[in-house]
Amino acid sequence: MSLLLDNQFRELPADKSVDTKLFLETVSHIPLFFDCLGSKVFSVIKSDINGNITKIRAVYLQDPVKYVTLQHILEAEREVHGAEWPKVGATLALMWLKRGLRFIQILLQSLVDGDRDENNPNLIRVNVTKAYEQALKKYHGWIVQKIFHAALLAAPYRSNFLKALSKGEEVKEEECLANVHQFLVNYTATIDAIYEMFINLNAELDYTV
Amino acid sequence: MSLLLDNQFRELPADKSVDTKLFLETVSHIPLFFDCLGSKVFSVIKSDINGNITKIRAVYLQDPVKYVTLQHILEAEREVHGAEWPKVGATLALMWLKRGLRFIQILLQSLVDGDRDENNPNLIRVNVTKAYEQALKKYHGWIVQKIFHAALLAAPYRSNFLKALSKGEEVKEEECLANVHQFLVNYTATIDAIYEMFINLNAELDYTV
Ligand SMILES: CCCCCCCCCCCCC/C=C/[C@@H](O)[C@H](CO[C@@H]1O[C@H](CO)[C@H](O)[C@H](OS(=O)(=O)O)[C@H]1O)NC(=O)CCCCCCCCCCC
Ligand SMILES: CCCCCCCCCCCCC/C=C/[C@@H](O)[C@H](CO[C@@H]1O[C@H](CO)[C@H](O)[C@H](OS(=O)(=O)O)[C@H]1O)NC(=O)CCCCCCCCCCC
Repeated sequence: MSLLLDNQFRELPADKSVDTKLFLETVSHIPLFFDCLGSKVFSVIKSDINGNITKIRAVYLQDPVKYVTLQHILEAEREVHGAEWPKVGATLALMWLKRGLRFIQILLQSLVDGDRDENNPNLIRVNVTKAYEQALKKYHGWIVQKIFHAALLAAPYRSNFLKALSKGEEVKEEECLANVHQFLVNYTATIDAIYEMFINLNAELDYTV
Repeated sequence: MSLLLDNQFRELPADKSVDTKLFLETVSHIPLFFDCLGSKVFSVIKSDINGNITKIRAVYLQDPVKYVTLQHILEAEREVHGAEWPKVGATLALMWLKRGLRFIQILLQSLVDGDRDENNPNLIRVNVTKAYEQALKKYHGWIVQKIFHAALLAAPYRSNFLKALSKGEEVKEEECLANVHQFLVNYTATIDAIYEMFINLNAELDYTV
């Protein structure tokens, strides 16, 4: 099976609330995605995202009943932290985590949509750049943007990336992309719901690192 | 007081063995050094070094009597891991940790020695570059080297860096550098001893990341 299909996100309920326990279980497999990129360079990003997940889990485990949905966490932290909020706690961790998740989503969607550099059909730089520009660039100062451009050179070939997404199995490209397409349905809906929640709660910040 | 003088390394015994417990206690303050660089960019490096320390500590705590010096750890791991060694366990963590420590040592030594770009006397790029070339460059592939060059642009001004080393207190530059000079004595001797141990045990590797 594929890395992605083994750990699918659930369909959201009608009120679009995200169950914290299920979310944490599913999202904990996402950092493995960065191993598919092949280079050690990306282990840094994997750690950053792992750190976000660890932080959210630590808050959840303090009171699983109180923090049953992600929105319960944000509302409770807003209560406790006053002016410091939302740049604090699991709220901050989720603010950044959702950007990393969005990056992955747009990258995968771009591959499914067939965006390609016709001169270099086996490179994924156009897809990675699209994802970066839409999900992260705005939150990065010019030095981190420069670092991104250097790191882009370590991006894997399209064929190797698709193979890694299929856990190294020799599946046909179309089959792999069909799996990704399938995965993206609930994944995208979950990320959209988290973004919406941040806007509704006025919890989004746009400072740069 | 200064960040460095509060946590000085001990003088080595005549046999130059490094006591694991004392080493871990002192070195655990070193990641704070990266906060002196000011930019968030360096938090990534701080985590990498923290990871090395955590890994060595975990091994030590399994049997503090058996692992009383760093050399005891390396010898025990050589025994247990066979062909995998030295690219494994606390040996690997210390292999990389010593390079980060060497980087800091050369950077500080270069400041004490008065190396300067006369056209930009308040920049420390020449000092950082010297440290990078001597301690790390060889172990980095061209993409990480490119990332280093981008990250170099986030290096702080000399004056701000010295101030941060003095924990934000307004000490005279000469006083700060005298403190650094003092700190470097046992710090350098400790790092030299660790490098020597790696050579003696044939534990040094030169693969690149
Ligand atoms: C020795 C030579 C080297 C020299 C040193 C070089 C160092 C280079 C480091 C560059 C930056 C690496 C990326 C990490 C960036 C991170 O800084 C940001 C913000 O990170 C957040 O910051 C918060 C505070 O503001 C909290 O601490 C969050 O933590 S909290 O949990 O504590 O609240 C934390 O996630 N995360 C991000 O931008 C997220 C990045 C997501 C994934 C991006 C995928 C990109 C893939 C690219 C493919 C081409
Ligand atoms: C979203 C946009 C961004 C895109 C992504 C960008 C990501 C950029 C990341 C660049 C690399 C950051 C530096 C980290 C490099 C690390 O890869 C190396 C090796 O790291 C070692 O690797 C081993 C396995 O080979 C073990 O895992 C070690 O871990 S173990 O403990 O498990 O055994 C681990 O330390 N450490 C190093 O090179 C050490 C670096 C030391 C400090 C250097 C100071 C430099 C200061 C520079 C000032 C200007």
